[in-house]
Amino acid sequence: MLKVVSTEKALEIIREEFSHIKAQTETVILSESIGRTLGDDILSEENIPAFNRSTVDGFAVRAKDTYGSSESVPSQLEITGEILMGEKAEAKLGEGECIRISTGGMIPENADSVVMVEHTDCTFPPVCLILKAVSPFENVTKKGDDTRKGDVVFKKGKVISSREAGVLASLGRSKVPVASKPRVGIISTGDEIVSIEGKVPFGKIRDINTHILSALINELGCIPKEYGIIRDNYDDIYNSVKKAVSENDIVLISGGSSAGARDMTAEIIGTLGELYLHGIAMKPGKPTIVGRIDQKAVFGLPGHPAAAYFVTLRLVKPLIDTILGRNSTDRAVTGRLTQNISSNHGREELLCVKFTADGVTPVFGKSGIISLLSESDGYIIIDRNCEGLKQGDEVHVILWN
Amino acid sequence: MLKVVSTEKALEIIREEFSHIKAQTETVILSESIGRTLGDDILSEENIPAFNRSTVDGFAVRAKDTYGSSESVPSQLEITGEILMGEKAEAKLGEGECIRISTGGMIPENADSVVMVEHTDCTFPPVCLILKAVSPFENVTKKGDDTRKGDVVFKKGKVISSREAGVLASLGRSKVPVASKPRVGIISTGDEIVSIEGKVPFGKIRDINTHILSALINELGCIPKEYGIIRDNYDDIYNSVKKAVSENDIVLISGGSSAGARDMTAEIIGTLGELYLHGIAMKPGKPTIVGRIDQKAVFGLPGHPAAAYFVTLRLVKPLIDTILGRNSTDRAVTGRLTQNISSNHGREELLCVKFTADGVTPVFGKSGIISLLSESDGYIIIDRNCEGLKQGDEVHVILWN
Repeated sequence: MLKVVSTEKALEIIREEFSHIKAQTETVILSESIGRTLGDDILSEENIPAFNRSTVDGFAVRAKDTYGSSESVPSQLEITGEILMGEKAEAKLGEGECIRISTGGMIPENADSVVMVEHTDCTFPPVCLILKAVSPFENVTKKGDDTRKGDVVFKKGKVISSREAGVLASLGRSKVPVASKPRVGIISTGDEIVSIEGKVPFGKIRDINTHILSALINELGCIPKEYGIIRDNYDDIYNSVKKAVSENDIVLISGGSSAGARDMTAEIIGTLGELYLHGIAMKPGKPTIVGRIDQKAVFGLPGHPAAAYFVTLRLVKPLIDTILGRNSTDRAVTGRLTQNISSNHGREELLCVKFTADGVTPVFGKSGIISLLSESDGYIIIDRNCEGLKQGDEVHVILWN
Repeated sequence: MLKVVSTEKALEIIREEFSHIKAQTETVILSESIGRTLGDDILSEENIPAFNRSTVDGFAVRAKDTYGSSESVPSQLEITGEILMGEKAEAKLGEGECIRISTGGMIPENADSVVMVEHTDCTFPPVCLILKAVSPFENVTKKGDDTRKGDVVFKKGKVISSREAGVLASLGRSKVPVASKPRVGIISTGDEIVSIEGKVPFGKIRDINTHILSALINELGCIPKEYGIIRDNYDDIYNSVKKAVSENDIVLISGGSSAGARDMTAEIIGTLGELYLHGIAMKPGKPTIVGRIDQKAVFGLPGHPAAAYFVTLRLVKPLIDTILGRNSTDRAVTGRLTQNISSNHGREELLCVKFTADGVTPVFGKSGIISLLSESDGYIIIDRNCEGLKQGDEVHVILWN
């Protein structure tokens, strides 16, 4: 029997023992890259914009020709042409001249700024009265302002959202290198567990874990594979673990809520591979098991859904981030507690919280209670050495999703 | 020409004129409901748990039989049986008796609490020494503690995450009623716009809007349909708008960055249907157009990607939320500005910001610059009547995603 370890120690073991698990890089089309993790740095192959562009409709000018202009004392420039959107500006601007230009149009040679059409008076062409001075590069996006050739625009590991998709489109990246999604097998064990379909026989409970873990694994950017409900029986668990290990990078075995069943899971992991830890000083999550079979990471999770959920977030998510090479996507905000929270005597605690008018309020519930997860806005991690928290103490809330 | 309206007025017009657009409800399997919006209230048809359950391995007892127990002065109870996990507890507990029970086991009649196995000594069965007193319902999840029969567990409009999936599984909901995804047609117009594939001819720019808007519409829970790049030509725009309107609930026409092109889009909307507004007192987003064709909502968005993105978030997202009956998913946190921001003189401003060590820092950039979106953590909305903001002022940051 291994001794109970701290969460930090468990994370260290996971980091060291599973460092060989790395996602491959695959190429997907831009629209399918959303939510994925960049598998390579993205470099710009050009300046964007490729030329100085007008950001308004108006007249391209030399700023100094407009200095001192006002409604009462306008400057007088000569309109010598027009630059159509999407066309190369061939004209050169001479002193005292201006050229009509549309938003997005290319600034002609010698011009450095654009006077908005609202600040001009062209009643008597080719005369253009400038009613307001502009400064150099006013109303102009300069060549390379957005991205310079050779710049690393995004580093490997960045998660792609619609905003990055826009940048990738601007770079002409219709195909994007992304980290392949890790495969995660999900096994739910327990004699008391039945399918969520149909009536529940008295004394049994529905298989929540397959569904909540599968959904979570999906949200974490992996491909879940469900192996169904396995009875608390050595051979059945042995065979399903063996199969799941052969088909996945990570295997989660939830349940075995009785000590005997948990020991059986630990024994099977030890027989098929190596057992690293059995028991963790974390609340919820105490009966967690971590081991390795055939270079794959195997986790024994508590049977209680909320506990299994928290252990997956606390231990499995960092491993997934490492496999993907992904920057952590956890988003934390600070707030002040609305009530005291007592100490855990050496165990780290993960606690659901919600934002209320007066601050951050703990959502208490037994670990078997599943609705507390959906009633909360996120969770806090209370250090195992914490002597308790007081009302008004500042806490970091890790937001859901 | 319609006059420029405030953002509030534009939102009011959108709310009133498009109130007839409502999503249908469809049924999907649980694993496919993640990220979707509930189309109906979810009621519990039973108590969960259906019986009092033990949350630990130990002995079911009557709490009062343990009062005063300690390591030095243990109580002495008689073990009269064992309740196996997943079995109906048939036994009744008599005075001075206890029954062995596993985590998840059903508490027998007359028992009200469980003593953890660690706090017992069973060296001489059938005697069980109780080394620590328990209070009533200690280590027990009571029947209906999680959900009571008839309770509205989730209201229509809630977005389903893995946490809700867990609750739905606990209720036996293998199929879930969700709002059907609205269909959103995306048209990118402009003579200067070219496909993101291949080299860009001089003076042209890549079609960012199709990709950033398509990705955003997807993130907002809708089905984007791309209609490609349409030249600034009345007939081409007319035909593509007509087609897009017939196939979608909402149509976004981006581009037409020149005033002439914008007027053409507005004219086409007016010809095919009704034009509600052309111009909005918002920065970025001034040249926005809103109209209706055949009961569908049609938006003319600015050509600049960042501006088109912000207008979609500010005006189209609330419409999508209403169509889906979805609670807004915007998540805002407060922070203090690290610098002054000048007034907009009557225009509402949407400004990208990022969190830095000293607070909330604006990410400035011209509206044509697309990378500022991906460099920021979210955005703030500065009221049109705001006389400018000062360093240290508290602002609400709407987080990306």
